[in-house]
Amino acid sequence: MTEETIWKDGDFRLVRHESEIPWLILHPKAEYREFSRMPRALRIRTMDLLAAIEEEMLAYYRPEKINIASFGNYLPRQHWHIMARFREDSYFPEPMWGTRQREAQLDLPPFAPFAEALRVRLDAVSLS
Amino acid sequence: MTEETIWKDGDFRLVRHESEIPWLILHPKAEYREFSRMPRALRIRTMDLLAAIEEEMLAYYRPEKINIASFGNYLPRQHWHIMARFREDSYFPEPMWGTRQREAQLDLPPFAPFAEALRVRLDAVSLS
Repeated sequence: MTEETIWKDGDFRLVRHESEIPWLILHPKAEYREFSRMPRALRIRTMDLLAAIEEEMLAYYRPEKINIASFGNYLPRQHWHIMARFREDSYFPEPMWGTRQREAQLDLPPFAPFAEALRVRLDAVSLS
Repeated sequence: MTEETIWKDGDFRLVRHESEIPWLILHPKAEYREFSRMPRALRIRTMDLLAAIEEEMLAYYRPEKINIASFGNYLPRQHWHIMARFREDSYFPEPMWGTRQREAQLDLPPFAPFAEALRVRLDAVSLS
């Protein structure tokens, strides 16, 4: 599984998860087994980053819906999945972990301009 | 699908989702298509409520892991699933939307005392 780092600051690292859809994973730099074990200030920053990532995905890709999830059952280290979902993707309306609905051929705009806009946006969130 | 209301205040309603595992769903009272469309104060309250629910689940059920997810693909109205996961539940380590791993017979403590402790806790979070 390729995981390219898109952005990071002192507390978080955002990586791209290889998929047919735009799918990012937000990792806290420190290891927390569960979300509630993080200091509240980091939980608030998590929430601000998730909302900012979501807004950039909505603006750039115009998806049908954003999906957000935190599982960590295989490796109990808390992290967040943020996924842009499309009516015609292979799993919609099921979660990406559900039953495949079809063989999709998505025609999405290139990832690089989105990643660049996202870096600018998250640097601003990070400093605020 | 039975959905018993466990707790509510002016902004949120917490319901029980019928499942072999402890599974709650946090609904904002107002309709938001996406998490980022909520006012920031409500997003922070969401995060505080998720963390409090998670802590109460961890304290009472001693699960292997907490899973949190927001999909809303069938009905695009933002809400959060909070699930206590156990090594021996039917889907672990897959998400509850994944491939069934086994036929589980979980032996969990009764829900009522957990719900009562949760109500007390969430009333405190709600007032803070």
